[in-house]
Amino acid sequence: MRIGFIGLGIMGGPMAANLVKAGHAVTGHNRSRAAVQRLVAAGGGAASTVADAVRDADVIITMLPDSPDVEQVALGEILPAAQPDALYIDMSTVRPQTSVAVAHTFAARGIRTLDAPVSGGEQGAIDATLSIMVGGSPEAFGRARPVLDALGTTIEHVGPDGAGQTVKAANQLVVAGTIELVAEAIVLLDATGVDVEAGLRVLGGGLAGNRIIDRRAESMLARRYEPGFRVDLHHKDLGIGLEVARDAGVVVPLGAVVAQLMAAVRARGDGALDHTALLKLVEALSGRTR
Amino acid sequence: MRIGFIGLGIMGGPMAANLVKAGHAVTGHNRSRAAVQRLVAAGGGAASTVADAVRDADVIITMLPDSPDVEQVALGEILPAAQPDALYIDMSTVRPQTSVAVAHTFAARGIRTLDAPVSGGEQGAIDATLSIMVGGSPEAFGRARPVLDALGTTIEHVGPDGAGQTVKAANQLVVAGTIELVAEAIVLLDATGVDVEAGLRVLGGGLAGNRIIDRRAESMLARRYEPGFRVDLHHKDLGIGLEVARDAGVVVPLGAVVAQLMAAVRARGDGALDHTALLKLVEALSGRTR
Repeated sequence: MRIGFIGLGIMGGPMAANLVKAGHAVTGHNRSRAAVQRLVAAGGGAASTVADAVRDADVIITMLPDSPDVEQVALGEILPAAQPDALYIDMSTVRPQTSVAVAHTFAARGIRTLDAPVSGGEQGAIDATLSIMVGGSPEAFGRARPVLDALGTTIEHVGPDGAGQTVKAANQLVVAGTIELVAEAIVLLDATGVDVEAGLRVLGGGLAGNRIIDRRAESMLARRYEPGFRVDLHHKDLGIGLEVARDAGVVVPLGAVVAQLMAAVRARGDGALDHTALLKLVEALSGRTR
Repeated sequence: MRIGFIGLGIMGGPMAANLVKAGHAVTGHNRSRAAVQRLVAAGGGAASTVADAVRDADVIITMLPDSPDVEQVALGEILPAAQPDALYIDMSTVRPQTSVAVAHTFAARGIRTLDAPVSGGEQGAIDATLSIMVGGSPEAFGRARPVLDALGTTIEHVGPDGAGQTVKAANQLVVAGTIELVAEAIVLLDATGVDVEAGLRVLGGGLAGNRIIDRRAESMLARRYEPGFRVDLHHKDLGIGLEVARDAGVVVPLGAVVAQLMAAVRARGDGALDHTALLKLVEALSGRTR
């Protein structure tokens, strides 16, 4: 298929390269030229404008930082240039309402859309092992499936327009909360003279077990916070999560507290660190700054 | 080995039976006679008093509800009757200070002790797949190992007297927090018209994945709250967890909030339900009572 790919950053770059590898004709656009050159080196095509990237595309994909970026690019640049029979898949993490608004505006012009945010991070993007949560019509999902299969391993159609973003919002609340729970446990064990590694082995083996202990305990115990997934981005995602909850009239006490704690990590100047820097905050709160 | 086993309840009963199966001579005592009769039927011996159960024992094990029970039985009944070379293992979940106080008092009479609380629930007790977190001296741990091997699969020596209880306290904070995070996600997805099962599959497959989604999502989605592990007991354990944190000067914001939420489940009359009834509370808080 002919694919126009907008946003070739840490996530979008390797995703576009994987689409080339899967045999698609990918034309990429990115504000910085270096990212476009990397796609060309991987066998893709270069476009100097969004319109050039999407004009002949069967499928258009965006992977952009935040809701305003998607609104501007989708409505201002993609919509005027796209073929009427194109499928537009936004894989950015944005507000569900943004996805719904884009879907309605595109539908009025006969263009189908999906919201399909991902989890799995840079490594998942490189390895094509992303989890992809997809909102939109079953027909559009069926059409997108061969493209998404080249990007991820867990691919679920979770509901109508915006549902992918809602699941992503819930995902980010659970991930942040789990990091914070593990951080509190580490500081508690550390402060009481317990063998922290042995303690985490027990926790990891029982009902307290989780993917954060499995995959992040080692770097957390070493207090290594190079990202990974940056606090700034997770902070943005938690804002979306609380907004979704508020709009739905759902009360999320733990989600609300962990969003405040992530905001504190950022306010203290650690926005560029990995989100596991919640541990650094719990240590600071407990007067155990290293 | 000759083992005296005090407390043959939901957990202690199957644990004592597994010790019989492993070839030990187990003499059991319990306040209700029916539990003792079950042990006799499984091949154990009956004792009508604590003193009778422990008098000839090489290893003494208690599995009791709470700290005051352990203090009373250990100091008031076991200590006067036990052999000087006996090993006393308390497998109840109690305050670390209780374990430390018992250890010191027993040590003054030359009797070694371990605190060795478990996780894994009734099924883990029956299947001998418990996780066991052990505090005390390495020598006492080495001596206890053949006994503990008959009860669990993950067995870790985590530090000195009381360390087993501290790890259990951290475990219970993480378990409660994880249930609450999953409950908030379920209500959020449910309220926004998302396919909740598909959404949880995505969460479970990524960094948000945890043992609660793996093992409890099905009963939570069905709103089945028969225990399992009762809210009353988890509420008690969270009290211990917050006390440990306070004593250590460690600040646990998420732990503190989830302890309050568990207290609310109990205050609303659901103390006898499974601890996943945190979901019922989030629904009530969100005006979505079924």
